[in-house]
Parts: sequence; C-alpha cells; structure tokens
Amino acid sequence: MHEIDTIDTRIGVTYPSGYRAAGVKAGIKASGREDVCLLVSDLPAAVAGAFTANRFAASSVRYDRGIVEAGQPVRAIVINSGNANAATGKNGEADTRATAGFAAEKLGVPVEQVLVSSTGRIGIPLPMDRIRKGVLDAVGKLSPDGGADALKAIMTTDTRPKWEHRELTAGGNAVRIGGMAKGAGMIAPSLRPAAPPHATMLAYLTTDAAVEPAFLRLCMDACLDESFNRITVDGDCSTNDTFLALANGAAGNEPLSADHPDAEKFAAAFGEVAASLARQMVLDGEGATRFVEVVVSGARTVSDARACAETIANSLLCKTAWFGGDPNWGRVIDAAGYSGADLNPEAVSLHYGTTPIVRNGIDAGTPEAEQAAAVKTDNVVVRLDLGVGDQRFTKWTCDLSYEYVRINAEYTT
Amino acid sequence: MHEIDTIDTRIGVTYPSGYRAAGVKAGIKASGREDVCLLVSDLPAAVAGAFTANRFAASSVRYDRGIVEAGQPVRAIVINSGNANAATGKNGEADTRATAGFAAEKLGVPVEQVLVSSTGRIGIPLPMDRIRKGVLDAVGKLSPDGGADALKAIMTTDTRPKWEHRELTAGGNAVRIGGMAKGAGMIAPSLRPAAPPHATMLAYLTTDAAVEPAFLRLCMDACLDESFNRITVDGDCSTNDTFLALANGAAGNEPLSADHPDAEKFAAAFGEVAASLARQMVLDGEGATRFVEVVVSGARTVSDARACAETIANSLLCKTAWFGGDPNWGRVIDAAGYSGADLNPEAVSLHYGTTPIVRNGIDAGTPEAEQAAAVKTDNVVVRLDLGVGDQRFTKWTCDLSYEYVRINAEYTT
Repeated sequence: MHEIDTIDTRIGVTYPSGYRAAGVKAGIKASGREDVCLLVSDLPAAVAGAFTANRFAASSVRYDRGIVEAGQPVRAIVINSGNANAATGKNGEADTRATAGFAAEKLGVPVEQVLVSSTGRIGIPLPMDRIRKGVLDAVGKLSPDGGADALKAIMTTDTRPKWEHRELTAGGNAVRIGGMAKGAGMIAPSLRPAAPPHATMLAYLTTDAAVEPAFLRLCMDACLDESFNRITVDGDCSTNDTFLALANGAAGNEPLSADHPDAEKFAAAFGEVAASLARQMVLDGEGATRFVEVVVSGARTVSDARACAETIANSLLCKTAWFGGDPNWGRVIDAAGYSGADLNPEAVSLHYGTTPIVRNGIDAGTPEAEQAAAVKTDNVVVRLDLGVGDQRFTKWTCDLSYEYVRINAEYTT
Repeated sequence: MHEIDTIDTRIGVTYPSGYRAAGVKAGIKASGREDVCLLVSDLPAAVAGAFTANRFAASSVRYDRGIVEAGQPVRAIVINSGNANAATGKNGEADTRATAGFAAEKLGVPVEQVLVSSTGRIGIPLPMDRIRKGVLDAVGKLSPDGGADALKAIMTTDTRPKWEHRELTAGGNAVRIGGMAKGAGMIAPSLRPAAPPHATMLAYLTTDAAVEPAFLRLCMDACLDESFNRITVDGDCSTNDTFLALANGAAGNEPLSADHPDAEKFAAAFGEVAASLARQMVLDGEGATRFVEVVVSGARTVSDARACAETIANSLLCKTAWFGGDPNWGRVIDAAGYSGADLNPEAVSLHYGTTPIVRNGIDAGTPEAEQAAAVKTDNVVVRLDLGVGDQRFTKWTCDLSYEYVRINAEYTT
C-alpha cells in the first residue's frame, strides 16, 4: 500500500512511456472529489480485457466488451467514478456511446478506439453535462505525470490509491509495466476473458512493450485466477468490474509473442502487477482490519478447492471471528462442510499459519492461547487440507468489522 | 414471538397429550443456564426427521439419521445445548451413543428408541459427567408441564424461546400439534428428508395424532421449503441442523395416511407450525432489527428463483442497506445479476412491498423518500420479478447490524 503524496507522479498507468493521464473534478461525486479520469496512449495500443459476469453488466462493460472483442488497437479510456451507469437502460447505453464520442472528438481519434468505465451508484442516469465538462477539462490536463491524479479520480470508498509497476528487459529493450486499480467494496470478482468477474473493481494495466494482441490476452487470462479472481471482500460481484490492459510498443522492443524467449518473464511481471493490485484492494477492503489468506489444498478438483476457499472467505461467521481475533476453528470446518467440496471428515487438517489447529478432523491439541496468537495478526493464513486429493486454490479476503457495517449502512453506492 | 413467563407451561412439545419434558442446568453452558432437555413420549411414536447437508454433520445427526431411517417408533429425545459434539471424531460418536444409552437405561426403554441432538461450540469433547448428571436430573423432573423448561434448555444465542401449536379435528378426534425450536445464528438451513439443511437450528414437532409413518414423512418433506429451508440469517449452514417430528397417537383418532380425508388439513397444520418456528428464528436472528421477505417470481425454474432469492437474502450489501433503511435498489439488482439465475435485464421489475422501485430494468421513478419509507419498516418485503418465466421462491431473512458483528466477534460458538 502506498501513500500518494510521498512518491513520484510518474506512477501507475503513466509509469511506462507513451501514456498521458489526468484526473479532474467534474461534480459527479457528492463529495466534490476527483471523478473523471482520462488515460491516453500516444500510440495505438493492443488491448486485452476481462469483464464482470454479472447479468446486469453496466453499459460501459457491454460497450468495452465489443471493442475488445473486435481486436483493434485503442487510444484512450475515459473513466468516471460516482455513477455506475448500470441498470439505466437504453439511455444509459446512449450515454456511454456519447461519452466515448465526445472524448474521441476532443482527442481527435476514432470513436472505436475509446473505451469507457464507470463506477459508483447503480440506477442513476449519468449526468452528461458534467461528464462532458470533466472530459474537456481532462483533455487539457493530460500529462505523463498524470498517473497520480488519475488514481484519485477512480476511487470511491477506497481509503488509499492502489498502483504497482515493474521494469524488465524483454525483446532486447527495457520495458515497463504500470497499473492502477480501485475497489474496496462490492468486491468478489470472477473476471473471465473479455467476459465476467464479481464486484466493482476497476483495474488498468499499461505497458510500453510491443506485445502481440494474442499474447497480451494470454497474459491476462493466465493471471486472473491468481489476482482479481482470487479476492473477495464481501462476496458481492459488481455490475461494473473491468480489467483492461494496453500495450503501446513505445519501448521499441521486438514484439513479444507466446513463443518469444522473454514471454514467460513478461507474463510473470504482468501477473505480479495484477496480483499486487488485487491484494491492495483486499488490504483496503471496506472496514478491513486483517488480511486473510485462505489456502485450500488436498482437494479432488480445483473447482472443489475454489468453492471451499470462497465459502470460508465469504462466511460471516469466519469473518467476524477473524475480526474478534477468535481462533474458533469450528466455523472454518463448518464452512468447508457446506461448501459442496468433497472432503474426508476424518482426514481434514487445518493450520493457522504454521500452528496446527485440526488434525484428522479433530482438535490438534494446540493450547487456545497459541491458536489465538495465530489469528491476532494483520496477516492471517488459514490452511485447510481436505484430505482427498492434490488440487488447491487460494483466496484473499479480509475480516468483517463494525466499520464495514457503518460504511454500508450509511453510505449509498 | 412469545414471552415465556406470561403463558401456560403446557406449551411447545408438551402441548399435545402423552408427552412429558424437562429442562435442567447441568453445567455445560458457561452461563450456567439450562442446557439439558429431555422429551419423552408416553407411547411409542412414529418419527420423521430432516438433517443438515453439512459434510461435517455432527455425531448426533449421523446417529439420529440411522434411527429415523430404520423407521421404528421412538420414545425419547435428549438434547444438550452449549456443545455441538461436532468434529469430535470417534470419541464424539461414542459420547452420543453413551448419552442415548444412559437415557434409555434411566427411562427403561430400548436404546434404539432414543434420539440425541446437540448444539453449541464445535470441536470440544462432550462433558459426559455433566451430560449424565443432567439426564438423571431431567428424568426426575419429566412433566406434561415441562414444555417451557424444555424451551429454555435448547437456546444458545437465542434471545427468546420459540414455540407454536395448533389444534384441529382429524380422523374423528381433536388432535394437537406442538413445536419448539432454537436458532439465531449459523442459520441457513437446507434440510433434506432424513438428510441435510444449513445452520444450527433445532426444531421439534410433536403431535398426539395417530399418523402413519409414511404420511408423517410426507408432511415433513412437503413443509421444508416453506419453513426451515426458506430461512437464512447469515448463510452459514451448521453441522447440527435437525428437525424431528413425533406422532404418538394418544389422541386415539383413526390413523392418518395420505389418502385419509383429513390428510390435507393435518399436513397444513403441520406446515403452519413448522413455518411459524422458522419465522421466529429469523425474527430472533442475531442482531436482527428488520425481518425481510424476499420474493423472486418470473423465473424460468424454481431453482433459479431459489438461487436468486438466496443470493439477495445473503448479500452483505443488501443486508447492511436494509439495516440502514436505505432503499439502494442497485444492490438488489446487482445480487440478482450474479446469482446465476436467468433473467431479462430489460424486463426485470422490483417492488418494496407495493411501492414500485424498478420497472423494465430501470428506475420506476418513485421519489426516494417513498422508496425509503418502504424499507424503514420492521417487515420489509422485496419483490423481484425476473421477467423470463412463471416460477417463484420466497426466502425469509433479516438485516445485518453492528450487534451481529458484536455477537459473533465476541462470542465463541
């Protein structure tokens, strides 16, 4: 997690070469904070995307899906916070197209090269006068130093901005990867390639590497289950979840494809940036006081391991026990028991970090004070082995506190 | 909901003739309150049962399932609160058998006629000395007026006892049906005939009617989806959920079977008692301030309607919005969208009670103050129509409050 004012402005999506960004106040958020972000690539950029599976996918998601699936390079992304433009019908679709069209006109690029993202309250018409004012203002402020302002403009209940970067040598040149994300609630992504996740998370990855579009998609697909699809704050999958990656080739490297010698290295760095952004979302999860890693192993199938890890990570009884620093392992076992995953009750084992808690399905005999010490940490690790196979899945989540209830009972998203 | 001290002691499971009960303090609960309950039928009683689907089903559940499936009449049920005797391995199984055996010996009935239920903390060995002390004490206190004490002895985080009764004429005689239940948290039953629900709920129904065992099972199976399987407090399905029904024939009526003219009338009364007990659990849900009925209609299949209603009822964002009295319909639509149910985003409609909220997938134009008034009630009704069919499912739930977090972060179950 970062403190935004203590570091360089050449961060996030403008860390790589050939990108400019801006974040401005357009009056969409009631708080008056930055709410329109514009990201522009100086060169046409290959694009990959993954989007929410929610049947009420926002109009921006449906619009972007079409552009990403068309497979042509893109030049810009307009993002607004404070209004999700979801469940807004045909008018909402027209507003998304108008947003892209207005930005395209002001940037002098074809409209089909402009993507749109929205996050905020569902069901309210997008205030188009403010959107246009914001886009116009942002066009005038575009800068390679705009990454920090861009971060501010995509936040909603986030308490901290989220970004990451990597530099590596690939295809003979130094190439950079940058990323930014927002998301603190309605977070349980289930992103699928040019298709679905759960939760309003928005994440953007930029690179100045030249990357073949097919390989860019491969990098994205490969990282999803170890980044955004690994996290849940509240189990609620949003209508607006979006993860977009742009590769503009400004670094001048040999284009990277799946069979390039540096492919694996690049994909790994891509995945690290995505995983870091995902982790930052959980660390900033609404009301979170502890980060919790749930590792389910010994499953018969990956889908069993995933179902079990997700059930534990979303269990209200587990989440409130973690908040209380209560080792209460019965709640973990109970959640595993109703997760639908196959398991052997007499072979299940559970550790908190390295502390044995359950062995062969019964109490491992660790004194309660030692059990409690293993959960009274900022970073709880719950390791459950189902005892019936060798498949595994890891989920990152957080606890459930009074503050979570306050934010969501008092705040209207 | 009832106040226990203001009414007759001939309530709950001793409302029908031919049953005696007792509830005593055996020192199992740290609070020192009543924690062993004994229910005895003076005549051998036909039995039906439905049990948790949890893979970590408690030893008492596995034990009772065997007895119920054997199909023979039973005489008694021993229930302890304060200890779930779940995830306790082979010693736990032996303790359940020993509990049944001790009660059978003291009552002078065959051990295979004694059922056992447990609720409380998971993973702790049952304190057998206290169980025996409690059973012995309870045998001495058995009384047709013991229904009220029995209620107290099965409670855990419950703040109020839960019971119901009906009287009707069937098979030529006046017959009575009584019931008692406990459950406030780890409540999301998915009871199946002599098989599974979610949550520690315990429920017992007694009747003095003579009922053919096959018809008693039919009455139970028919009511589950409109009673216990209709409720969720926290989405956590317990290891110990149990619903048992006894019919001892003390009323002397013509035995009721599925083709008896009074079959429907009796089944309806049976279902009303079960539904009332289930509803009382939600009204007393941990920290609950509002009762919420989620009615999903217009679904292509019942299983779609059920998945959608359950997803909304368990959504943290919906539950906290209800607590805040916030109409925030975007959260309901969002939950429907990721529930997996088929729906038509442009045909979906939503009402809170009779107030239109969403029409054809977009805001229905009801002023926000009127929307808010429809959720700022003790009894919120959320009616969502998916617009693709004619199937429906109803779920009963409650909101999520600070008090829920307090109970579950500070209380060890």
